[in-house]
Amino acid sequence: MFEHRYVSDHLQKAVEAFSRLPGIGPKSALRMALYLLKQGEGESEDLAESILTLRRKVVYCSGCRMISDAPLCPVCSNPERDRGIICVVENVRDVMSIEHTGRYKGLYHVLGGIISPIDGIGPADLAVEPLLERLSKGGVREVILALSTTMEGETTCFYLYKKMASLAIKITTIARGVGFGDQLEYTDELTLGRSIENRQPFKPE
Amino acid sequence: MFEHRYVSDHLQKAVEAFSRLPGIGPKSALRMALYLLKQGEGESEDLAESILTLRRKVVYCSGCRMISDAPLCPVCSNPERDRGIICVVENVRDVMSIEHTGRYKGLYHVLGGIISPIDGIGPADLAVEPLLERLSKGGVREVILALSTTMEGETTCFYLYKKMASLAIKITTIARGVGFGDQLEYTDELTLGRSIENRQPFKPE
Repeated sequence: MFEHRYVSDHLQKAVEAFSRLPGIGPKSALRMALYLLKQGEGESEDLAESILTLRRKVVYCSGCRMISDAPLCPVCSNPERDRGIICVVENVRDVMSIEHTGRYKGLYHVLGGIISPIDGIGPADLAVEPLLERLSKGGVREVILALSTTMEGETTCFYLYKKMASLAIKITTIARGVGFGDQLEYTDELTLGRSIENRQPFKPE
Repeated sequence: MFEHRYVSDHLQKAVEAFSRLPGIGPKSALRMALYLLKQGEGESEDLAESILTLRRKVVYCSGCRMISDAPLCPVCSNPERDRGIICVVENVRDVMSIEHTGRYKGLYHVLGGIISPIDGIGPADLAVEPLLERLSKGGVREVILALSTTMEGETTCFYLYKKMASLAIKITTIARGVGFGDQLEYTDELTLGRSIENRQPFKPE
C-alpha cells in the first residue's frame, strides 16, 4: 500500500478508512481524501453525519428484515400490498432490484444470506426461523423463492422447500431461462438446455 | 439516479453523500452504505472520525503549500533537504509521486493548479506570488518546473519563466522524452520528434 504517512498522519488514516470500503483501493481512497480537503468543511461534515446517521438510525424491519427507518418498513406497512404472498430473497439489494421492476405487489422476507458450507454459512445463520414463524401465523397462500440460480441458491431453495412442504402453502420459484434481450449464441449450455426442456406455450402479447 | 428513498431516507442521504465523492457512482455508493450497515458501529464511527479529523486538522505548509499536519511540512522542516532547489509542481499528488521516486532531495512549491483559460484559472488563482516571495528571500539557486507536458503546463512554465527571468536563479524543467520501458512504435509523433532533436550523449551506466 502507498504510504502517505510522511505527508500527514490524518491523511493516512482517512485513506486507510476509505480503503476498507468495498471496491475502494488505496488510489481511489487518496483521491477521495484529497477531494474532501479541497471542499469546504461542510462537505466533510455532511458525509460524516450521513455515515453516522445511517449506521445509528437504520433498523431492520420486524416483518421482513429489510432495512428501514421505522420498526416496520414501507412495504410491510403499506395496506395495498398483498399480504398473502411472501417473496424470499437473499439480501437487501435483491428487494431493491425487485421493487425497481415495479412488477411485484406482495411482501418480502430477507434471509440475510444463502446456505454456503464453503463460507461456513448454515441454515442457523439465516432468517429461516422468523420466516416459518411468519408463515405459522396464517394468511400466506404463496411463497416465492427468489434466490440466485447458483449451487448455493439451489441448496437453500431445497432446504426451505423441505421446511415448508408440510404447510398448505404454494411454493414457487422465479422463472429461469434465457434472459430477455440475450442472444442464444452467448447463453451458457446449462441455461439453454433447461430452457428447451422447460419450454412453454407461445403467447403472442 | 437510483432511488432508495422508499427504503430509507437515511440510506438515501448516505448514498447521495458518497456519490458526491470523485469516481463514486450511485451503485458503488449503495455498496459502501450497505457494507457499513453490516459492520459494527465502530467501523462507521472510525470512518466519520477520520473524515472530520482530515478536514479539520490538515493544514497547508507555510513553506511549500503541501498538505501537512504541522505548520511546516516534513519536507520543509527536514534539515537534510537541499534548501537551494525548489521543485514547482501543480498539486499535492505530484509531490507524493516525486517523493515516492526517492530521487529528489530539494524542497517543493505547490502551485495549486495550472493556468487554464478554458477552466477560468489564471495566474492569480495559483500560488505564484508566494513562490516569488520565497525566491526573493535568497538562498535558492535552482527552480525546477515539474509541470505536465500539456498545453496548460507549457503555458504555466512560460509564465513562471518570464516572472523569474530577472532573478539570478537557474530555471530547469524535468526531462521530456520517450518514457523508460516505452516502445517507440507506440510513442506519439511529437514526443518522438522532440526526443530526436534533444538527443543526448549516450552514457553506459
